[in-house]
Amino acid sequence: MIKNGDVQNQRAEQRFKLTRVGVTGVKKPVVVERPWGRVTLNATIDVYVDLPSDQKGSHMSRNVEVTGEVVDRSVRKPVRGLEELTSEMCEILLERHEYASYSEVDISADYFLERKSPKGRPSLENYRIMGKTECYKNGDKRRYIGVEVVGMNACPCAMESVKNVYRKINPQLEDILETLPVITHNQRNRSTLMMEVPLEKKVELNDMIDIVESSLSSPTHEILKRDDEAQVVIRSHENPKFVEDVVRDILSKVLQRYKDFPDSTRVEVKSESEESIHKHNALAERITTFGELRK
Amino acid sequence: MIKNGDVQNQRAEQRFKLTRVGVTGVKKPVVVERPWGRVTLNATIDVYVDLPSDQKGSHMSRNVEVTGEVVDRSVRKPVRGLEELTSEMCEILLERHEYASYSEVDISADYFLERKSPKGRPSLENYRIMGKTECYKNGDKRRYIGVEVVGMNACPCAMESVKNVYRKINPQLEDILETLPVITHNQRNRSTLMMEVPLEKKVELNDMIDIVESSLSSPTHEILKRDDEAQVVIRSHENPKFVEDVVRDILSKVLQRYKDFPDSTRVEVKSESEESIHKHNALAERITTFGELRK
Amino acid sequence: MIKNGDVQNQRAEQRFKLTRVGVTGVKKPVVVERPWGRVTLNATIDVYVDLPSDQKGSHMSRNVEVTGEVVDRSVRKPVRGLEELTSEMCEILLERHEYASYSEVDISADYFLERKSPKGRPSLENYRIMGKTECYKNGDKRRYIGVEVVGMNACPCAMESVKNVYRKINPQLEDILETLPVITHNQRNRSTLMMEVPLEKKVELNDMIDIVESSLSSPTHEILKRDDEAQVVIRSHENPKFVEDVVRDILSKVLQRYKDFPDSTRVEVKSESEESIHKHNALAERITTFGELRK
Amino acid sequence: MIKNGDVQNQRAEQRFKLTRVGVTGVKKPVVVERPWGRVTLNATIDVYVDLPSDQKGSHMSRNVEVTGEVVDRSVRKPVRGLEELTSEMCEILLERHEYASYSEVDISADYFLERKSPKGRPSLENYRIMGKTECYKNGDKRRYIGVEVVGMNACPCAMESVKNVYRKINPQLEDILETLPVITHNQRNRSTLMMEVPLEKKVELNDMIDIVESSLSSPTHEILKRDDEAQVVIRSHENPKFVEDVVRDILSKVLQRYKDFPDSTRVEVKSESEESIHKHNALAERITTFGELRK
Repeated sequence: MIKNGDVQNQRAEQRFKLTRVGVTGVKKPVVVERPWGRVTLNATIDVYVDLPSDQKGSHMSRNVEVTGEVVDRSVRKPVRGLEELTSEMCEILLERHEYASYSEVDISADYFLERKSPKGRPSLENYRIMGKTECYKNGDKRRYIGVEVVGMNACPCAMESVKNVYRKINPQLEDILETLPVITHNQRNRSTLMMEVPLEKKVELNDMIDIVESSLSSPTHEILKRDDEAQVVIRSHENPKFVEDVVRDILSKVLQRYKDFPDSTRVEVKSESEESIHKHNALAERITTFGELRK
Repeated sequence: MIKNGDVQNQRAEQRFKLTRVGVTGVKKPVVVERPWGRVTLNATIDVYVDLPSDQKGSHMSRNVEVTGEVVDRSVRKPVRGLEELTSEMCEILLERHEYASYSEVDISADYFLERKSPKGRPSLENYRIMGKTECYKNGDKRRYIGVEVVGMNACPCAMESVKNVYRKINPQLEDILETLPVITHNQRNRSTLMMEVPLEKKVELNDMIDIVESSLSSPTHEILKRDDEAQVVIRSHENPKFVEDVVRDILSKVLQRYKDFPDSTRVEVKSESEESIHKHNALAERITTFGELRK
Repeated sequence: MIKNGDVQNQRAEQRFKLTRVGVTGVKKPVVVERPWGRVTLNATIDVYVDLPSDQKGSHMSRNVEVTGEVVDRSVRKPVRGLEELTSEMCEILLERHEYASYSEVDISADYFLERKSPKGRPSLENYRIMGKTECYKNGDKRRYIGVEVVGMNACPCAMESVKNVYRKINPQLEDILETLPVITHNQRNRSTLMMEVPLEKKVELNDMIDIVESSLSSPTHEILKRDDEAQVVIRSHENPKFVEDVVRDILSKVLQRYKDFPDSTRVEVKSESEESIHKHNALAERITTFGELRK
Repeated sequence: MIKNGDVQNQRAEQRFKLTRVGVTGVKKPVVVERPWGRVTLNATIDVYVDLPSDQKGSHMSRNVEVTGEVVDRSVRKPVRGLEELTSEMCEILLERHEYASYSEVDISADYFLERKSPKGRPSLENYRIMGKTECYKNGDKRRYIGVEVVGMNACPCAMESVKNVYRKINPQLEDILETLPVITHNQRNRSTLMMEVPLEKKVELNDMIDIVESSLSSPTHEILKRDDEAQVVIRSHENPKFVEDVVRDILSKVLQRYKDFPDSTRVEVKSESEESIHKHNALAERITTFGELRK
């Protein structure tokens, strides 16, 4: 007979350790402190610990209890950032799962910022924010935060190809081709920046969103009247970009903005364009450390 | 004690009839005869019948059995169209579920057609095809087939707004604005045409794909070398379209192509653009009959 | 030259009216008044009007403007329900689109309610809430609200089949089979109730969630310690249900709870089980009016 | 003026190398040779190379051309496995992108195998198969293949907790509790095995599917008549498993089946249960090498 029904604490038959055991897709409202007041995020959270080779199961209800406790506390005392929230959860997880040597929490949520259109019309734009902490019993800890931004990019290659077609048809167009942006395909682009936050440092999500959004051909806006729409189209065509350019510009701005971060700081940047001329997407990605980028 | 465990045949406690009861998301390889040979579709199928108020449950395994039988037969004797397949299934469903007065089968699958790029390069393009039959015990039957096409559309309004900006900056540009297409936002567009196939008529899916694809600013292509890419960009900008235009052009071509179809023929057309300048989509839709359109 | 770049106001070439034209997937934080305080919903909103046959395009930026205005006002003066919000938006849409004779707004959002486990442990459970209004220029208006609840259902048929197997193996088990619930397959179930709110009536979303959740074999809970988990398992097996039963029980409770609603009131109920013994789902559905149900 | 419009070959302004640049979501029918004949897979393919720091863009149309060529050849001469297909593509990619030092191809597709229910009824069951190759200019190459299996698992912990409840209610039940499986929650489970195929070795996908499917509480079946359904329920309850057990059993069988594979062979196993008693999922995972598992 199993004592107290604790099947999890039995010895495992197949004695392999497990990298991650936990719950995924837990939904919770989280209250965070923002420069302009308190905001409630509708977060989706994954919570894991590792499992040693000799224990049959992980006590998964503890993962959800820890989530509930930390999130409930956020209502009374809002957290300052997702890295604070995930970091606190990871530490408590290691206490509650006495057999674990590793804990991990992943979180993501919709997020809104007020933006202005080219002609100054305000609107609330939607972003996705992410946080992640990995924590080891030996005290090592890695905290990450990230943002996903939907924007617009216009292809520089097709623009050049169209110019070449025009030149062949009518060489006298050369002057006009130098002054006016030429037609090309443009499309919805989804770019993400995920970076480590060194323990003694702070990173503001709004800054990260600025970095990504300013690296696209143009931001997108919810409300565009005719004069605004023209400006967004002109701006994006004066600023054509490959997904490769987007990733490199983000990397460059990150290095510039976080100059004092150590070489070990990890960073992942991805830009994916939902190509208007193809049924498939175009993607560029860099996964690396600040040290590698500084070489 | 329930005889043979037939809980379904028990009397229902709450005596309401049910509109549809069945299985969803059944995956099956279906062999269909195409002009160029046999093709295997990886289909996703939903199968329903109605349920009278006095019966507790529907015998759902019969739905999957009928699916299996008809699909297996397709391997030996390929079906000629999705409407043939769903129609046959609906009739057998009414026989097997002796208590049912209505049966319905929905099917969808990826589909491929060879297309040529503007410069003549061939590639296999991906589409989605759909079929649906609704069958009544009194003999009434409605069969539908449909297609979903991913293509490109370029906005005519932003093009006009950009022209107006250019005119203000430099009125001498007027000549050039009349000859060269002007920049605008363009994007991935997803358009669907679903229409009834009157019992004595035939509709070829490839024709429906042609109708939808030719109603967009431009088709999209998997492989575009530089000269091709320029042509697709120019073609789409010489042919700017609202989602409203796309839906109306499809409706017009459908009426033209299927002149002899009765007024009662139902048709649904939808066009959705994944706007490059917004984070949201633009959608236009018409749900109607041929008779309404002919007025 | 097009005046003010108003391409939308041009005459359409293909003169078909359109059923719905608008924007989909607009994301907005909406503040609603709840019995226990103000809550911020992260809503996804679709906004449409119809388009007459002689007008080329709909002014879609007006849809997003109306959304922004009404939602912004909700921050200062929280709305009392989703039907109030969508209803107000629909009316303004008809004013702003002077050519439209129909407007429609669809909204959905995650929603949280505190629930207690069988042993009394509190947790915040996640639901999905929906709202929809259809508004006609002639004054007709239909408002709907809805809820989606994830719960558990246990199959009564497999339970009976297992009993029959046991009886054959050992007829002396009959006594025990009468007292203890027998094993069966159980699974995650997703049930929705969408109903019309007659103009002079009120419907509370929390009541609708109660109706759906109490019609399943058991609610599900985020945190279940061992004693709780046993109770949820026992409760669901003492209360085995087909998806057909779930739909009928919801219909019955709706009729009971909203006795004074007119016969014309529309209602849609759907229950889908993600079957543990199959790779496909089982679904039951009823789309009808209160009048039909009362017959 | 850019020569031939080759914007990609320009020098990059921001001189960072990129880890992966390419196309995602290319859909293609691929013909593969199976023990029982030729099968057409509807594959989704991602194709990448890296990009040196001094080159502005990657020539993405080459990725799609290589895909087309290799897949077209599969129609005339079917490939024997996904690892053969992705491996060949990776090699050609490095030739075509003369600047690349790394290439990667990811592929996945629906797949069907005939299975028998407990009572011997045949049905075609649906699986997901995956392939991946990573190829370096220095000749290093890593090939992976994988499978995703949907099955059923029953929770051993809740079963024990229910037994304890029964014992307290009636100690005389002890005998019956030893002989009959007790009720518990069970649910749809999605488990994946992805493993490296050492260059001189072969791995058969069907074997991998067998390994995963036999590690669950029970396989699932499309068609189950009453006697079959009872057997599936009994079998799963006689074989209750945590997701942790599923992962470990797969690892154990993999080591046993591929005894002669080198210690460096990589393997990833994941099992996710769509919990019937919760709104969230339970997940266990191990990412490791054969060498680590053999310790």
